[in-house]
Amino acid sequence: MPLKMTKITPVLLAGGSGSRLWPVSRDQLPKQFQPLVGDLSTYQQTLKRVSDPELYAAPVVITNEDFRFFAQHQAEEVGVPSTVVLEPARRDSAAAMAAAAVLAERRSPGGLVLALAADHVVLDEGLFSDAVKLGCKAALDGHVVVFGLTPTEPRTSYGYINPGASFDGEADLHLVEGFVEKPNAETAIGYLQKGYLWNSGNFLFRSDMMIAELQAYAPDIIAAVEASVDQAETDLGFLRLHKESFEGAPKNSIDYAVIEKTRKIAVVRGHFRWSDIGSWDAIWEVAPKSDKDNAIVGEGLALGSEGCLIHSTGMMTTVVGAKDLVVVVTQDAVLVVPKARAQEVKGLVESLKSGGYTGITETHKRGYRPWGYVEEMLTAERFAVKRLVIDPGARTSLQSHMNRSEHWVVVGGTATVTIGESTSILTENESIYVPLGKTHRIANKGRVALELIEVRTGAYIQDDDVLRIEDDYSRKLSL
Amino acid sequence: MPLKMTKITPVLLAGGSGSRLWPVSRDQLPKQFQPLVGDLSTYQQTLKRVSDPELYAAPVVITNEDFRFFAQHQAEEVGVPSTVVLEPARRDSAAAMAAAAVLAERRSPGGLVLALAADHVVLDEGLFSDAVKLGCKAALDGHVVVFGLTPTEPRTSYGYINPGASFDGEADLHLVEGFVEKPNAETAIGYLQKGYLWNSGNFLFRSDMMIAELQAYAPDIIAAVEASVDQAETDLGFLRLHKESFEGAPKNSIDYAVIEKTRKIAVVRGHFRWSDIGSWDAIWEVAPKSDKDNAIVGEGLALGSEGCLIHSTGMMTTVVGAKDLVVVVTQDAVLVVPKARAQEVKGLVESLKSGGYTGITETHKRGYRPWGYVEEMLTAERFAVKRLVIDPGARTSLQSHMNRSEHWVVVGGTATVTIGESTSILTENESIYVPLGKTHRIANKGRVALELIEVRTGAYIQDDDVLRIEDDYSRKLSL
Repeated sequence: MPLKMTKITPVLLAGGSGSRLWPVSRDQLPKQFQPLVGDLSTYQQTLKRVSDPELYAAPVVITNEDFRFFAQHQAEEVGVPSTVVLEPARRDSAAAMAAAAVLAERRSPGGLVLALAADHVVLDEGLFSDAVKLGCKAALDGHVVVFGLTPTEPRTSYGYINPGASFDGEADLHLVEGFVEKPNAETAIGYLQKGYLWNSGNFLFRSDMMIAELQAYAPDIIAAVEASVDQAETDLGFLRLHKESFEGAPKNSIDYAVIEKTRKIAVVRGHFRWSDIGSWDAIWEVAPKSDKDNAIVGEGLALGSEGCLIHSTGMMTTVVGAKDLVVVVTQDAVLVVPKARAQEVKGLVESLKSGGYTGITETHKRGYRPWGYVEEMLTAERFAVKRLVIDPGARTSLQSHMNRSEHWVVVGGTATVTIGESTSILTENESIYVPLGKTHRIANKGRVALELIEVRTGAYIQDDDVLRIEDDYSRKLSL
Repeated sequence: MPLKMTKITPVLLAGGSGSRLWPVSRDQLPKQFQPLVGDLSTYQQTLKRVSDPELYAAPVVITNEDFRFFAQHQAEEVGVPSTVVLEPARRDSAAAMAAAAVLAERRSPGGLVLALAADHVVLDEGLFSDAVKLGCKAALDGHVVVFGLTPTEPRTSYGYINPGASFDGEADLHLVEGFVEKPNAETAIGYLQKGYLWNSGNFLFRSDMMIAELQAYAPDIIAAVEASVDQAETDLGFLRLHKESFEGAPKNSIDYAVIEKTRKIAVVRGHFRWSDIGSWDAIWEVAPKSDKDNAIVGEGLALGSEGCLIHSTGMMTTVVGAKDLVVVVTQDAVLVVPKARAQEVKGLVESLKSGGYTGITETHKRGYRPWGYVEEMLTAERFAVKRLVIDPGARTSLQSHMNRSEHWVVVGGTATVTIGESTSILTENESIYVPLGKTHRIANKGRVALELIEVRTGAYIQDDDVLRIEDDYSRKLSL
């Protein structure tokens, strides 16, 4: 293994959404950043999976503007420092893979890249690592390597790989004979009999090879992406690709653009358990279960029920006398769907959006900010109550509001509050008033989280009544 | 009809609980005081049903200590002033009916009493009134009159009445041949074929006759209840029966004690639609439905579903691809149960109680007080946030706390706040601080509701840290 010399660069594709996992997954905080299986988000699990410094270089994360602070913050949380690259527009997976290849090539010419979806679950890290190491043989030889899994059932929601001749005599490494789309049930049974593999949609390749393949099969995409990397700007540790150049890349998936066309393609047969957790039935499958096959995440009770999933981040959720049902509860929405119809949640989210319920499809009650988070507790016509948690060392922007006043009560930690020209220090059980129009800022100069209850009152109490005079996080000065 | 001379005294039995309708119905606010069908509670609907001053005297409500303020407040809301009688202990329906008879007899000797469960739904008020008027004939003649309904299906959850000979040639008024308990499905079909009626469990009788029947069949009960009425005390407009005397009454239902024994019993065949809303499937039955037979109360969306009930007082509740399912959502609990198994909710509540989840089986997030209500918004270890709404003209007790301070921000109306010796007036967007140990009181001397956000902080933040120095509502001085 020549890995001491060229460490693999992991690239996490973390820009997607996942409306089938509503109400947990939402536009502004999609599934890859949520703890859906276990205590960590799948993004964090994926980062940890590629954190062995013997095998991997520091990861590159490709995501979009909206998710930049989660991507950075969650990487810090698991101690896997990563370069976060921002796609200035959604151009599907081919452009993202092109960016991965170009960035890796500039970092280490001809180096290996492991491109991973940030929203998959892998249950056996060691077997995953074995598969990557085996794949390196074919990747170093100039192949794009895909990861296939032995199917445990004839699933119709996955694509399949037809493995051909063995690569270099390896039992679990083959050239690829062909890819097939999601089959119907009958065809899927046939695939299992023929020894086809599930296609996990993750890739290992040499950066120069991927660039060459893109040049051969998708020259528009690679040209646009190279230009966007050339003109990229660094901002607060983020690498922001050049917008106009990047937008020039046609939208396409890497599968259509390259994988199904290239002849230099191999497949590793992985032995790890894997799921793309594409919908709630898939979450149930990988979740730990009780003897009646009920899986309960959060506060839940299943009585006389079997095969159910309760996923509650909101409140006590009880299911009585039900079978194969999914019940998902957040702080502001409830979903009930039979497991067999979990795919239909995507349509439900579209219905909610077209019905104007964007509050529960786009955002959560808890909204993350670069300085911590704010949780909506109560919103009435002329007042609102919020809970603010500010991380040690962080501070809000210096700002003012035209239509509301704010009352802050400190309930934990110590606040350094600036109002107009005056600065005060407040601790637990102290309060302060911010008159309408006055500039203000809250800083947490302490070592523990600062927590406040904010009561805002006024004729207009929405968040977009804000004028930012100064911001540590380069956010827009007005919304 | 001799009704101009002796108006009927309606007596509402409103002391029961209803755990099968959890999570809406809870120990401290049971189903009869909740808007389960329509905008009014069934208690209020029942009061309005007997509010025709031509036919009825002012109602008497028999309930228990815990519900006294709801009973009074909800009667005021619908403009049906009622005498609220408090049972000092739970002694089942025979003692309650005895109290009804004794109280009515003292008010108007030999007068008619219409004893109604406060938790039933009647959909045709006019037909109900017709049935009462018809029943008066037999009641004035000295019969206890029960209300029977023509069954629409062989339901096994109801008792049945076997009607005998016509009373005075009336088609819908009969002597009773016999009562039968809840049958099995086969027996129920037989009952329908024989012309049996559902027993609605409501009664019309002359007060002196009921007393005589109780003296004949349940002398212990009537003696104990008469003594408890003799020594009853009036307090804030409530009539509180004497505790020790009342407790001497054996526990029994009026059905076992009198109805199934007396020979002076008649039945009116009612033509109104009626439900005892004993469980969630019964709520679905009486609720308005869409074309797919889904009933939605509150914010809900049913997609590709049929025969479902969504009852949400908490948040947006969505059901996809489900059939005959009940989904109930409050601010702090979720229930999912197939309609056919709705009876099992009673067992679920027992499981929750034995599991220590008393917070969601006994109380609601919103707790009613004689002065308005308080809603729990957030409870942490060393702080809590509450929303207080104080009715015009009302005030909290004069009180102090040993372990917590309170911050109040007025968000609606005007508060007159007393802290120690000083009194201030605060309006919207003003705040005040109540130091630990200081006596304080909030009064609403205005004409609109006063609304405050309270942030309490301290080492102990539970409600039972209170010392009441003075209270308009005669509540205990410490909890």
